[in-house]
Amino acid sequence: MLLTVLLCTLGLAKAGYEPTWASLDTRPLPTWYDEAKVGIFLHWGVFSVPSFGSEWFWQHWQGAHIQAYVDFMKKNYRPNFTYQDFAPQFTAEFYDPYKWAQVLNASGARYVVLTSKHHEGYTLWPSRYSWGWNAVDVGPKRDLLGDLQLAIRTLTPHIHFGLYHSMYEWFNPLYLQDKAMHFQTQNFVKRKTMPELYEVVNQYKPEVVWSDGDWEAEDKYWNSTGFLAWLFNESPVKDTVVVNDRWGRGIPCHHGSYYTCSDHYNPGVLQPHKWENCMTLDKRSWGYRRNAPATDYITIHDLLTELAMTISCRGNILINAGPTHDGRIPPIMEERLRQLGSWLDINGEAVYQSQPWTHQNDSLTPGIWYTSKGDAVYAIVLKWPQAGILTLGSALATASTSISFLGYSSGPPLRYRMVKKGLQVVFPPMSEVKGQWVWVLAMRGVNPTPLLTPPQTFMSEPSHSNFIHFMQ
Amino acid sequence: MLLTVLLCTLGLAKAGYEPTWASLDTRPLPTWYDEAKVGIFLHWGVFSVPSFGSEWFWQHWQGAHIQAYVDFMKKNYRPNFTYQDFAPQFTAEFYDPYKWAQVLNASGARYVVLTSKHHEGYTLWPSRYSWGWNAVDVGPKRDLLGDLQLAIRTLTPHIHFGLYHSMYEWFNPLYLQDKAMHFQTQNFVKRKTMPELYEVVNQYKPEVVWSDGDWEAEDKYWNSTGFLAWLFNESPVKDTVVVNDRWGRGIPCHHGSYYTCSDHYNPGVLQPHKWENCMTLDKRSWGYRRNAPATDYITIHDLLTELAMTISCRGNILINAGPTHDGRIPPIMEERLRQLGSWLDINGEAVYQSQPWTHQNDSLTPGIWYTSKGDAVYAIVLKWPQAGILTLGSALATASTSISFLGYSSGPPLRYRMVKKGLQVVFPPMSEVKGQWVWVLAMRGVNPTPLLTPPQTFMSEPSHSNFIHFMQ
Amino acid sequence: MLLTVLLCTLGLAKAGYEPTWASLDTRPLPTWYDEAKVGIFLHWGVFSVPSFGSEWFWQHWQGAHIQAYVDFMKKNYRPNFTYQDFAPQFTAEFYDPYKWAQVLNASGARYVVLTSKHHEGYTLWPSRYSWGWNAVDVGPKRDLLGDLQLAIRTLTPHIHFGLYHSMYEWFNPLYLQDKAMHFQTQNFVKRKTMPELYEVVNQYKPEVVWSDGDWEAEDKYWNSTGFLAWLFNESPVKDTVVVNDRWGRGIPCHHGSYYTCSDHYNPGVLQPHKWENCMTLDKRSWGYRRNAPATDYITIHDLLTELAMTISCRGNILINAGPTHDGRIPPIMEERLRQLGSWLDINGEAVYQSQPWTHQNDSLTPGIWYTSKGDAVYAIVLKWPQAGILTLGSALATASTSISFLGYSSGPPLRYRMVKKGLQVVFPPMSEVKGQWVWVLAMRGVNPTPLLTPPQTFMSEPSHSNFIHFMQ
Amino acid sequence: MLLTVLLCTLGLAKAGYEPTWASLDTRPLPTWYDEAKVGIFLHWGVFSVPSFGSEWFWQHWQGAHIQAYVDFMKKNYRPNFTYQDFAPQFTAEFYDPYKWAQVLNASGARYVVLTSKHHEGYTLWPSRYSWGWNAVDVGPKRDLLGDLQLAIRTLTPHIHFGLYHSMYEWFNPLYLQDKAMHFQTQNFVKRKTMPELYEVVNQYKPEVVWSDGDWEAEDKYWNSTGFLAWLFNESPVKDTVVVNDRWGRGIPCHHGSYYTCSDHYNPGVLQPHKWENCMTLDKRSWGYRRNAPATDYITIHDLLTELAMTISCRGNILINAGPTHDGRIPPIMEERLRQLGSWLDINGEAVYQSQPWTHQNDSLTPGIWYTSKGDAVYAIVLKWPQAGILTLGSALATASTSISFLGYSSGPPLRYRMVKKGLQVVFPPMSEVKGQWVWVLAMRGVNPTPLLTPPQTFMSEPSHSNFIHFMQ
Repeated sequence: MLLTVLLCTLGLAKAGYEPTWASLDTRPLPTWYDEAKVGIFLHWGVFSVPSFGSEWFWQHWQGAHIQAYVDFMKKNYRPNFTYQDFAPQFTAEFYDPYKWAQVLNASGARYVVLTSKHHEGYTLWPSRYSWGWNAVDVGPKRDLLGDLQLAIRTLTPHIHFGLYHSMYEWFNPLYLQDKAMHFQTQNFVKRKTMPELYEVVNQYKPEVVWSDGDWEAEDKYWNSTGFLAWLFNESPVKDTVVVNDRWGRGIPCHHGSYYTCSDHYNPGVLQPHKWENCMTLDKRSWGYRRNAPATDYITIHDLLTELAMTISCRGNILINAGPTHDGRIPPIMEERLRQLGSWLDINGEAVYQSQPWTHQNDSLTPGIWYTSKGDAVYAIVLKWPQAGILTLGSALATASTSISFLGYSSGPPLRYRMVKKGLQVVFPPMSEVKGQWVWVLAMRGVNPTPLLTPPQTFMSEPSHSNFIHFMQ
Repeated sequence: MLLTVLLCTLGLAKAGYEPTWASLDTRPLPTWYDEAKVGIFLHWGVFSVPSFGSEWFWQHWQGAHIQAYVDFMKKNYRPNFTYQDFAPQFTAEFYDPYKWAQVLNASGARYVVLTSKHHEGYTLWPSRYSWGWNAVDVGPKRDLLGDLQLAIRTLTPHIHFGLYHSMYEWFNPLYLQDKAMHFQTQNFVKRKTMPELYEVVNQYKPEVVWSDGDWEAEDKYWNSTGFLAWLFNESPVKDTVVVNDRWGRGIPCHHGSYYTCSDHYNPGVLQPHKWENCMTLDKRSWGYRRNAPATDYITIHDLLTELAMTISCRGNILINAGPTHDGRIPPIMEERLRQLGSWLDINGEAVYQSQPWTHQNDSLTPGIWYTSKGDAVYAIVLKWPQAGILTLGSALATASTSISFLGYSSGPPLRYRMVKKGLQVVFPPMSEVKGQWVWVLAMRGVNPTPLLTPPQTFMSEPSHSNFIHFMQ
Repeated sequence: MLLTVLLCTLGLAKAGYEPTWASLDTRPLPTWYDEAKVGIFLHWGVFSVPSFGSEWFWQHWQGAHIQAYVDFMKKNYRPNFTYQDFAPQFTAEFYDPYKWAQVLNASGARYVVLTSKHHEGYTLWPSRYSWGWNAVDVGPKRDLLGDLQLAIRTLTPHIHFGLYHSMYEWFNPLYLQDKAMHFQTQNFVKRKTMPELYEVVNQYKPEVVWSDGDWEAEDKYWNSTGFLAWLFNESPVKDTVVVNDRWGRGIPCHHGSYYTCSDHYNPGVLQPHKWENCMTLDKRSWGYRRNAPATDYITIHDLLTELAMTISCRGNILINAGPTHDGRIPPIMEERLRQLGSWLDINGEAVYQSQPWTHQNDSLTPGIWYTSKGDAVYAIVLKWPQAGILTLGSALATASTSISFLGYSSGPPLRYRMVKKGLQVVFPPMSEVKGQWVWVLAMRGVNPTPLLTPPQTFMSEPSHSNFIHFMQ
Repeated sequence: MLLTVLLCTLGLAKAGYEPTWASLDTRPLPTWYDEAKVGIFLHWGVFSVPSFGSEWFWQHWQGAHIQAYVDFMKKNYRPNFTYQDFAPQFTAEFYDPYKWAQVLNASGARYVVLTSKHHEGYTLWPSRYSWGWNAVDVGPKRDLLGDLQLAIRTLTPHIHFGLYHSMYEWFNPLYLQDKAMHFQTQNFVKRKTMPELYEVVNQYKPEVVWSDGDWEAEDKYWNSTGFLAWLFNESPVKDTVVVNDRWGRGIPCHHGSYYTCSDHYNPGVLQPHKWENCMTLDKRSWGYRRNAPATDYITIHDLLTELAMTISCRGNILINAGPTHDGRIPPIMEERLRQLGSWLDINGEAVYQSQPWTHQNDSLTPGIWYTSKGDAVYAIVLKWPQAGILTLGSALATASTSISFLGYSSGPPLRYRMVKKGLQVVFPPMSEVKGQWVWVLAMRGVNPTPLLTPPQTFMSEPSHSNFIHFMQ
């Protein structure tokens, strides 16, 4: 016992976690993750070749037989063209991971998660378990995953490298057979999922393992807890890795380093457990979609709105972009990421390393979301107040109150006063401040108004209700 | 004489113009063009397949042997791949001219000019003079030009349809032979250029004929004046068509309905003759270029700056976008066009049907460009004035002066006063106005300050000095 | 007049032939051609890419809309695939003209005729009049015609190099326009046919110009006599070139160095004018046809039968093979050509430089065809006689008669006797002779039986009645 | 014991064979196989796409880096083109298994063996163990194996359907890992080889399982005896299936229904155990090879020579043809097969159901090979005897001797006499017999000369010494 304590103290406890959720859930979240707040998600694969409709192209075409997909193939390809026939056209000739790293860096993101393998089963690294169906064997002839990992760690080491991995594969006959056996057999897991998960972790040392494709079977089928015990106890990233919650039917929102619950999850109220809002720049797809007009991309204001809501409620935001078959991050996506980065340059103080505050959104004025750090409370203001006067219902001024405006450093502290409805703050002239889109007040020496009843419902800006194709 | 007058009055003067510049130059500019102010240029062709470097891909690769182009081909294509081999990959499967018309409409443009044929010689319409090297015979199997024309005229008839046409073709052996003969023979012109110009005008009735590729030979070689006499006297568009000035060596900036002089021409001072600034959203290319990062696209502020300078000095602006091989206007370009349209929705009053004013840019404050219409003078303000107080050195208030702010219609007229340096105008709070990026004051009852010496040099915002690949 | 005679005598008469058939027909046939007897025809072009059905693929598919062709495209290609889209797949990577020359040499042929341009209009040489639709601009990126010419003239100079050239082009809009004008305009001829004919002759100096595609218009439209006058008077091949007879409607079988009349023409009776039997190894196509089973190729016995009939009646035989898109002569065709060569090695004495005899085929025994040379008469025997005793009804023995058997040189002269029905010859044992398939008796000192009535009808072996797709 | 006998009698002995060679070797050879004598081997796979060099293309290119292969790729494909990138071009659009069955039937073959999977690992049937690397998932989108099986069994049921299967796969990482472990692990066998062997047998019920690719490991690694015990005891073809001998290092020529020993094995002397000579029509390759001139195909005489030698010495002959990527049997191969069939139509009596005779080849005259059936002895004569008189040193005439000539049925029995050197037979005139190339005497009432010493060495016609690329 004494020895265990000692080893734990030294971080050497080799077999610290049991392969049970009860044990695994005791692992503390590595601090980097909560501090990072902003990550970039990248969906890239053979689906980037047709780049039509969604990264679910294959399933929609040949699984669900959705008419638009069937028609697309009929109109543009020879009969008998198969999904695998697309792979040689995945050429990635413009892929420059150092340029990607620069864009990621410019976005202000602190971690990146690349689809090492999506539901199609194609691996972006040369997996020995996916012979002929990986990026070195067919298509780019290049270790796409490894090359990004190297670029990130060389050029932008402050960005944590992570990977997405789909447990299931839509059309893998080994999987389909296990499924037909009601998951009483585990051939697919033993020969494919687990070997390649160990391989990819050992080889690329990801600090995020973003699991997906778990929902048709129990975690027991997937051997999830066994893998996680190894990941947390023995893997080369045991000390820093974080994982999400998609490890089997019933697990999401219940177990994992952090919760994702469902795609585009953004509850709008404070969550007791660390969570992540994974969302997309293209409202309708995670993979690149040629048939997306400019109006299908969210605006920078929408993006900052999502960010504010998310971090106020203890979430991280994972913003998805879909590279093209030839290896580019589409300029419209790059522009959004650079806009985000320019905003974070001014307002990052309210984001990185921040904590939720007592209140998440203001009780009086809609479109105000709070974070805090030390003695500072940050009000993230989505809409410039009428006549430049903002009234906050959730904050009380004190004798020592001081309010500044991020991006208005040259100006004097803001004027404020307590009125009946709350704390009135006088904004500087808009033309004098550096930022745009969304603004942040940094308040020191303010108290929260009492929490009468804990916030239970989502009362603020609704998330996009028009997302159609969810990532699953 | 009497008869002629009568015929002219009736618009029946059949042989009104002689095939000489002296005669052709007497034709008045059809009014629609000067009123339109904003057009969209579209560069589309087989070069959109490699979509690398520039629409000059072929010439750079196999004419000038520029290393980057040679390397691109070596790295990505089989040896012996020819430029013509690209054509079957020009698939245009996403081409929806009605969607294009919607985007053009949303941009606020009043005319569009599509490359009916660029220097590569490939025609976007099924020309009988370009057998096997046109969009119906190889590639899209579709009349790309005709379909856009139809969509524009059906859906957005307020947008004038025009076309670009290259006189020369880099590698056409007929042309090269004439050239080798020092243009003493005219086989190319007689068999190719002229027949196809007549064909395309008769068939699609363009209201702009935007000529290019003229510079290696005299207008006499090209039969330019003969064509124009027909165009102005007999063609189906004789009453409304406008042409630019690229009709032979020495002609640009001297003859034509309007002058373009050189690519990206933007003199910054008032011009005596109507002109056009043709410029690009992608700073480095007219054709779509996959290797363009987001930062290679000009910002909306840059675009509005170009627009303001241009129309103040009697120019129209022709903004270029490059569609992709599969028929899409890239979202980053669409976004710029929509941003422009949203600005014109508010500020179009200062643009459409406007005239240059006495002054073009303000004599005191940089970044102010003027237009006028009737009794109104418009000051286009590129930068929000410090402390919201703008001082104009070129305008004098009078007793009847009234100044409003476009996009601040709900507010009261602006306060102003004459001070020593000029006319001081108090801006509304930025947060109260609808527009962004660039603002417009509409002033009535103001007088110009005296013009001491006519403006002769370009003293204001320089145009982009970093444009590298000019359209030629 | 005197001067002319003198010049003619010296062979210097520059303007010897007038551009009239009356004059052109006076030109003597260059002797090499009649002596050569055997030529190889090669049909190669973009049609070798689909290599389905026939070299008329394009016309059958998109002109006549024959169902099998329409279905082939629908089943195997994307919608909107055009004929010109095939051209980049004409790769010719295995094309080795020196190997072709070796095969031609092994066949015993004395001339070769390659399709420099078929009705599709694609030129196998880089014609300046067929820009983008020739073998250097698209597909092989190689002067296919020039390279064969060079190989033939370097490696096998005893083989005369010739070329086929189609006057018309099915889908050339210039042609279609002339045709719509009932051939009252000549744009196509002046800009395409004639320039390229002069170009190809000047550049490659063919000794056969095998014209085709003439039948829709008069020779006057085609400028045929003008071209031929130049060809015979001034061209670099004026002394040795021969031409066929396809120079306009009504011309075939009436004018030209030699007559072809129709495809597979083989009249079976002596012709007064030199002629040529152009026929195919693949019974149903001139171009390579992937869907040809072995049984669609004629046997070596069929081929020798054709040869015997043809040369007996004053014809040459032009045997067609169709190379593949990747530049190979298919082995089944190569084998036939080598079999022919092995036969000619033994029996060439009866072929090369031979003349028709008094009789063409035997009056008594079917399957016997005669040729002659000097005092020798050759009986070509298609079928081994029963019991080894052959009786000839058309030859009479004399005191000096001597009969030998080609390929039985070691043996004694054959025994013979005159019987009532004719001349009986005793064959050597079949197992002792070198040749196979068809045999030749060389008879000296024999007289022909009297010709009672000249043979007027075709009474012997019919040619293949199952040829379906004629070359036109 | 009694029960076993009973069960065996009833054919119910389920566990009749133990998984040991001792037991498996006791299984009698199903009679159909020895009687069949002639089979056709078909090598078809992704290697049929490059169809260059050999079916070992992949290994030669990327394993051994043979220059010709490296150059071929460099010259004709884009850099980074992989072997798997070929698969979409395996289109098989002309594949008509019913036509193949007709050709097989015309050849006189009594069985066919198709490569269900070669060393590349690509399966011609939709194996669930070769996901994405089989003929339904990529390329033809068709069960190539199943469709041939169906056609054969429907159209030509007298032809037995068999399949080739490679145990190892050059580049399969599972295999390479086992190999790196010195075959102490069996992951590849357990997950790939065995599952797919069971699958393919159960699904297609082949009567030949022609194993290959075994030589790098022991039979123990491959689980060979286990599979064979199942095959012989329980499989759906347990009663009729035959297997070859390539089941592990040291096994060939020692165990199996019949022996193949090495490629092109043709010992020339009588073998104690049934064997098979697998040989090729293309001297240098098993897979189709575009770069094969006609002279690289063996002649029909060579083929009949191989056949005679083989069956005289207790072998079967398995004649290989290589179909093309688009699904055709090349005409030169079809022609050889049809020539063979025409020969067998006349001489099949000496082949099918025949047995080796006392002597294999004649002791006096070279080029004579014997078979027998009942009281008949067949002398297969490769060369027509001089003067039509053949002297046999190995056969003795008796009072009841009668000799006929196959294909000379109309004629009288042959004349013969015993001379000092042996039995002299007078051949009919060659021109009177139906066959060609090789002839057969059917002798009844002859005795063999005494066998002094058993033939031990190969003294007769050598097999082709110029075979370069052996199938391995």
